[in-house]
Amino acid sequence: MECTIALAAGLLGDGWNLLILRSALFGASRFAEFQDRLAIPSTTLTRRLDALTDQGFFSRQRYEERPPRNEYQLTEMGREVLPILVAMGAWAGKWLTPDCAPFEFVDSETRRQVEPVLIDRVSGKEIRPGGVAVVPGPGASARLRRTVLGPLSLG
Amino acid sequence: MECTIALAAGLLGDGWNLLILRSALFGASRFAEFQDRLAIPSTTLTRRLDALTDQGFFSRQRYEERPPRNEYQLTEMGREVLPILVAMGAWAGKWLTPDCAPFEFVDSETRRQVEPVLIDRVSGKEIRPGGVAVVPGPGASARLRRTVLGPLSLG
Repeated sequence: MECTIALAAGLLGDGWNLLILRSALFGASRFAEFQDRLAIPSTTLTRRLDALTDQGFFSRQRYEERPPRNEYQLTEMGREVLPILVAMGAWAGKWLTPDCAPFEFVDSETRRQVEPVLIDRVSGKEIRPGGVAVVPGPGASARLRRTVLGPLSLG
Repeated sequence: MECTIALAAGLLGDGWNLLILRSALFGASRFAEFQDRLAIPSTTLTRRLDALTDQGFFSRQRYEERPPRNEYQLTEMGREVLPILVAMGAWAGKWLTPDCAPFEFVDSETRRQVEPVLIDRVSGKEIRPGGVAVVPGPGASARLRRTVLGPLSLG
């Protein structure tokens, strides 16, 4: 499976992983803090935190020896998941829970609800269907060039 | 599960669903077009297209009666998945396949690679950790207010 989106989906497309990352982005770092925020079985939480650490989302630090306790700090790779989560949250709030969103994202300073929009830093334009095309990257295989990026890709 | 991100993850966090949506966003609408782009078993493709239609991502139109053939057009809800996919693709390209991205997103007109960045349309500021806080929405339960959105949420 050579699609980077599918790779990302494998890592991020899991409810627990997303909830753990969201909790971390909003301040949780210790085991008990994740557990307080998420009604998650502790064996599941242990397993997920270990896997997310191995995958590079967290770095782990021992902060207490007896009993042994770890702290999980987001790496830069982990912190950069925030825009994906905010975009997913905004989309879901609009389309899945239009009048009953359980939470909202606000600007930390002004406390006004944010209206997330994805733009291209190069052109400043909003990224919309039709405005972007997909082209083979340096790692594209012959099959990918022939099929996924075939004649129907917009551009 | 009251978290909208988790709801979105349930729908979007699946490799096949994302690949189907990506193919649609870049031009596929007929069964054979999806099949050509994705090495997907046809029973899986049928099941996924039906489910994505029921969930509101596609509308289905019969374009041929004998044999019966359907076309799947993205709804507005489906089209608005694009920013999430582009954000995921950019994140994965940077962190998972830094030198061997299988594909890249380019501006349709200039053909220059896009650098997606999520901004707040209200303030114009980039959305980054620490810059946004999460607050209860109209549908927040008492438990959610107490835990997920507890004292550690940034803001």
